[in-house]
Amino acid sequence: MGAGNQQGRPDETICHYVAGFVDGEGSFHVAVQRNPSTRWKWQVIPEFHVSQNDGNQHVLELIRRVLGCGYLKPNHRNSRDRTFVLVVRDHANLATKVVPFFCKYELRTTKRADFERFAQIVEMMENGRHLTLEGLREIMRIAFQMNQGGVRRRASVEDILASLEPSETVRRTLTHVR
Amino acid sequence: MGAGNQQGRPDETICHYVAGFVDGEGSFHVAVQRNPSTRWKWQVIPEFHVSQNDGNQHVLELIRRVLGCGYLKPNHRNSRDRTFVLVVRDHANLATKVVPFFCKYELRTTKRADFERFAQIVEMMENGRHLTLEGLREIMRIAFQMNQGGVRRRASVEDILASLEPSETVRRTLTHVR
Repeated sequence: MGAGNQQGRPDETICHYVAGFVDGEGSFHVAVQRNPSTRWKWQVIPEFHVSQNDGNQHVLELIRRVLGCGYLKPNHRNSRDRTFVLVVRDHANLATKVVPFFCKYELRTTKRADFERFAQIVEMMENGRHLTLEGLREIMRIAFQMNQGGVRRRASVEDILASLEPSETVRRTLTHVR
Repeated sequence: MGAGNQQGRPDETICHYVAGFVDGEGSFHVAVQRNPSTRWKWQVIPEFHVSQNDGNQHVLELIRRVLGCGYLKPNHRNSRDRTFVLVVRDHANLATKVVPFFCKYELRTTKRADFERFAQIVEMMENGRHLTLEGLREIMRIAFQMNQGGVRRRASVEDILASLEPSETVRRTLTHVR
């Protein structure tokens, strides 16, 4: 059950196992949340996670070691929920560990398209694109194409993009800056 | 996306991917069904299957090629069901392909315990144990330990085992044979 070989790096075989497991059970998601403390009042939060029933935490821990990042926590979405979840939210870890891993050990289901959008968003954020209104809009449009076109999202992308119009103050500042 | 190398055998990397995928998405199940045409009026049917949403049939096909057996069919459990399923029921294929594959490419979740019971039942059936009342009872007891102790089964193992008492005719024949 070891995840490492003598060099302390994960065995290739386990990496392929992890790719297969995540292709079935993992999720690449970009949360779009209102946050008044940010410049545009909305923020985008990429997150990778894998859930498993109680009793399989050791497999989540194996994936955590193979990826070299993330943390485990009880999911507890309701009182009957006994699942655990491996979460990676830290941006540097997503950019330097999670994304390169699944570029190398390829996904083969339709989840691959979600991963590619996820990787694109992580890269855009690495380049600070989410700090500009235009970049944030583009990231949101991509995020809403993920996971069956965002069917589970509460708000439509159009509503969010409409609410993203810069305020008069911001607009004046922008004009000034240009 | 190829499943074979130059020797026409699956790449090792894909085998590990398949192990990971099946560990999340696959199922080892032994159906226990009433069948008046069989000697003991009940039969046990081991089945391996993997389900996926529409759009991922190519991954099921990949697994089918890697295992070297099975067939794909629409699941259609209800009118809204768009899933497809890879099924292996053929006993020789289970015994010579599916079981050896997952002995070699190990499962790591709690599904592994189900697989081990499944493999035990397949081997017992290879040896004709299901043709004896004692063997059939033992197989059923093992089958009911699988998949969270058979919580999804309609009948209890006690009721089935009780109904398995040989009829007077059979009992007499057994006595005679002994």
